[in-house]
Amino acid sequence: MKETDNKDEQYMRKALYEAERAAEEGEIPIGAVIVCKDRIISRAHNLTEKLHDVTAHAEMQAITSAADLLGGKYLSDCTLYVTVEPCVMCAGAIGWAQIGRIVYGASDEKRGYQLYAPRAFHPKATVTRGVLEAECRQLMQEFFKQKR
Amino acid sequence: MKETDNKDEQYMRKALYEAERAAEEGEIPIGAVIVCKDRIISRAHNLTEKLHDVTAHAEMQAITSAADLLGGKYLSDCTLYVTVEPCVMCAGAIGWAQIGRIVYGASDEKRGYQLYAPRAFHPKATVTRGVLEAECRQLMQEFFKQKR
Repeated sequence: MKETDNKDEQYMRKALYEAERAAEEGEIPIGAVIVCKDRIISRAHNLTEKLHDVTAHAEMQAITSAADLLGGKYLSDCTLYVTVEPCVMCAGAIGWAQIGRIVYGASDEKRGYQLYAPRAFHPKATVTRGVLEAECRQLMQEFFKQKR
Repeated sequence: MKETDNKDEQYMRKALYEAERAAEEGEIPIGAVIVCKDRIISRAHNLTEKLHDVTAHAEMQAITSAADLLGGKYLSDCTLYVTVEPCVMCAGAIGWAQIGRIVYGASDEKRGYQLYAPRAFHPKATVTRGVLEAECRQLMQEFFKQKR
């Protein structure tokens, strides 16, 4: 296993931890962390139910929080780790923030950005898919099974 | 002129007023209002510079505020008036909120949702384009002329 793989899994575990917090709160279990220069600068989980706010996705909150910390709008040197493929809205925000690298776990075939807005990220952004995919997906599946 | 046209122009003027406030604050001049049962329930303008936050578009704030007021996530019975065509991010949020009708003024050929995410709105949503288009566009053009 490459060093990068280890790092990616390590940070995805932090995002998964956030997703688990979301599940505990009855929220769709998606978590995100933003890493800048090998340091986590923001972490968040989905809060749409609690806040009655469709914009309160994990990625949106992580971006707002990271920009606030860095004091600038752009996150070009940052990597976003998120347990599930971003939706159109989040992909648009990721594009505006010019996030340099996006790493996600499970794909979202129904609402993912690849289906609805495949060119939403910054043209120079790189994307890594499928990191801890099984665990990220399982958390979602268990959540929706309980909801039924 | 139809009654609807009058109403649309009337509400778009409120959105334009918000856009002018944005311009005064050095923000890209885009304003939005959300109308529910013939009443404005939220109004907002772009605050991305002030907040160092790419997610602080007029539409995003208007959606968050309207949902907060109504106490629910969905805005199916609402109309969003926005001076400029929504971007990918905002279009995604409009879709999640299931906003029933979207009315905008000027098109955004470079970053508009029609280019990047044409199916982002709820399938049942209706769209009206070009209301007070000249005024909405002029405000943008003057802003960028001054910036150069």
